[in-house]
Amino acid sequence: MNNKKIWEEAEKIIPGGNGLLSKRPQRFLPDGWPIYYKKAKGIYIWDLSLKKYTDFSIMGVGTAILGYANDQVDKKAISAIKASINTTLNSKEEFLLAKEILKYDKFADQVKFAKAGGEAMAIATRIARTNTNKHKIVFCGYHGWHDWYISANLSDRKNLNNHLLQNLNPTGIPKILKNLMIPLKFNDYKSLKEIFLKDRNAGILVIEGARNDYLSKNFVKTLKQVQRKYNIIVIIDEITSGWRETMGGVYKKVGIKPDMVVYGKALGNGYPISAVVGKKNIMKKSNETFISSTAWTERIGFAAALETIKFLKRKNVSKLIQKRGMKIIKNWKILAQKNDLKLKTNNFYSSPSFQFDYASESEKLHTLFTELMLKRGYLATNYMFVTYSHSDREINKYLKNCDKVFTQIKESLFLKKNILKSRIRKMTY
Amino acid sequence: MNNKKIWEEAEKIIPGGNGLLSKRPQRFLPDGWPIYYKKAKGIYIWDLSLKKYTDFSIMGVGTAILGYANDQVDKKAISAIKASINTTLNSKEEFLLAKEILKYDKFADQVKFAKAGGEAMAIATRIARTNTNKHKIVFCGYHGWHDWYISANLSDRKNLNNHLLQNLNPTGIPKILKNLMIPLKFNDYKSLKEIFLKDRNAGILVIEGARNDYLSKNFVKTLKQVQRKYNIIVIIDEITSGWRETMGGVYKKVGIKPDMVVYGKALGNGYPISAVVGKKNIMKKSNETFISSTAWTERIGFAAALETIKFLKRKNVSKLIQKRGMKIIKNWKILAQKNDLKLKTNNFYSSPSFQFDYASESEKLHTLFTELMLKRGYLATNYMFVTYSHSDREINKYLKNCDKVFTQIKESLFLKKNILKSRIRKMTY
Repeated sequence: MNNKKIWEEAEKIIPGGNGLLSKRPQRFLPDGWPIYYKKAKGIYIWDLSLKKYTDFSIMGVGTAILGYANDQVDKKAISAIKASINTTLNSKEEFLLAKEILKYDKFADQVKFAKAGGEAMAIATRIARTNTNKHKIVFCGYHGWHDWYISANLSDRKNLNNHLLQNLNPTGIPKILKNLMIPLKFNDYKSLKEIFLKDRNAGILVIEGARNDYLSKNFVKTLKQVQRKYNIIVIIDEITSGWRETMGGVYKKVGIKPDMVVYGKALGNGYPISAVVGKKNIMKKSNETFISSTAWTERIGFAAALETIKFLKRKNVSKLIQKRGMKIIKNWKILAQKNDLKLKTNNFYSSPSFQFDYASESEKLHTLFTELMLKRGYLATNYMFVTYSHSDREINKYLKNCDKVFTQIKESLFLKKNILKSRIRKMTY
Repeated sequence: MNNKKIWEEAEKIIPGGNGLLSKRPQRFLPDGWPIYYKKAKGIYIWDLSLKKYTDFSIMGVGTAILGYANDQVDKKAISAIKASINTTLNSKEEFLLAKEILKYDKFADQVKFAKAGGEAMAIATRIARTNTNKHKIVFCGYHGWHDWYISANLSDRKNLNNHLLQNLNPTGIPKILKNLMIPLKFNDYKSLKEIFLKDRNAGILVIEGARNDYLSKNFVKTLKQVQRKYNIIVIIDEITSGWRETMGGVYKKVGIKPDMVVYGKALGNGYPISAVVGKKNIMKKSNETFISSTAWTERIGFAAALETIKFLKRKNVSKLIQKRGMKIIKNWKILAQKNDLKLKTNNFYSSPSFQFDYASESEKLHTLFTELMLKRGYLATNYMFVTYSHSDREINKYLKNCDKVFTQIKESLFLKKNILKSRIRKMTY
């Protein structure tokens, strides 16, 4: 079976075809995306027929911060396997990883581990709610699939719009949860102040470290005032942003003082591991509720994360990544200008993105970009994660290809030679 | 640092010392349990000072159904690592594993994967609730740490007693969830009928495949009547019971017709992987809500579970395990009689357990059993999981040691020479 045939079969027996929206082919290029991989190394991926691609797209949805199949990390994972990964007794690595993370999160005293990111956010909000009777959560950004978050759309189906995913349907979530979530627009510091002033039941703030841009100075300043004035718990979701631009979260870069920080994705360079890191007076309350799972004590995740953090530190990866991200954003702009294309870019260097600025035509052009880059051997879309393995040489090569593809896109726009409607990517779920 | 010192340090920086209640030393033998392992193979575990133990206790909390570090399974995991575990494209193994599981769960058409067991139960209940507006859940047994389950104790702190864990504190869970859970006693078929008759908002039943005993004929018969009469969704939690006594769940053995079945623990022989398996008309609704996580598409779990299932089938492991479990239970009884000890045993063969029947003295004796067996090189308590690696030779050796320890316990009872209060195990959290 070829990849398309396998996917069709998979869609019959797995809802959605796989377990993760972000890896579904219709989000990139319906009827063209390679879908399945056989193997990968660095930034190279080989599909089932062993055709090689260079990944300038989502790099394992942001997990492969060092590149695919990093030798040092994999060596530790394999050693963990050989010594057995899950026994009646505990892994010392769980303790060592907690200690290692606390070296970098100076505000914090305790760490609780899980495997998935959304799962860790469910733990963090549970712990927050054990610490306050003000159970309403003010939130901005994307925080996973769990009830506490998706319940935001129970009172208004648009509450989660502009927080990454549009029109999420809260079906399956008890309707009585409908008034516990208060959406906040990105960097809307005025509302931040007002919400906590007006709503005495709002006791928790959940925001992302960064998504498309950094938190503004005004927002950070206002947050500090709010923290002084009200007894709230601030959780920074660094699942997507963490370890890319600092040793730890982006919260350090913008100067936020969190109560809890949550990591996932890059923390284990692809191995499932997530962490809730927080102040002792808050974290210790998790012993009063019940939060426990067998899978969380499996050894590989701890071993892989320990080595990933050491590698990030040793090679000063965050500096490299930001420099490279800046270069990519800068050159996208230059190439767009050169090719006479209207293009917007973001400011979060480690995860560059662009938007062709042609109103309803934009999604066609993003799809076309993916299609034309794919012909040149690239997995590429209008957003990406920069990794340690994206060498300057590969970035230069990629940018040369972007140049040629931008020219083709311009010609396509000029000649009205756009791709078929059926092939336009679908970003919704 | 020795293991005790490390644990003391771990308790300072990890709430509870680790991520899983069942691996905490105070549940076995405070101040004596080895706590951490260096390596493990088959049923042998070496602690940090390389002292060797034979595991006749919880075998990785029920994960290591084939024994620790199974060569065939580990080989597949290492191959997955070498080919990269988490990329922008999908693993074919996710599809192959869904296909493999559906071979054995004939009632089902679709599978959705996660990593942890409690996480999979949160997915299953979400999917169930997308299928019915009758959001109240009737439950029996243990189903993890998530809000939907622990909320049972909001209306009455005793609702979750007799479902494995006592006196669970529902702090941190929104109080408005307090009326969504209806506890059902094990095998209480009369209440089963009454609850669904009386409560029109009860639309979902969540029970375990087995814990200490099998579901009774009366219960299964009544459940079938209830299913015919009311349009309810039946979820069987086989996270602990699955793959031990059939190729799939114990629901097959007792003749239940589920709508969804959930697996975890043994499914990946220690590698984190869980699965929600269900009928298409129910599972497909998961595309209408949002259930997605990056960690779920990581490759090792799929590869390990594929090989575990093949191994279970090839070696007819479930038959072996049941035979061995029966032998252990039978001989515990014989040895108790021989040593004049009052002992109760359970009936779920793959997970034998016993209780010394001495009222308030019993926990002392269970702790003493662990202490005396530990001196003889065993990790042992009053419950265990039987695995493929528990050979007849090792079982005979274990039983000989049980005999001697039962004698010592009898002497201790007779001489009132019990262990210090401070050393008695604490099963609560």
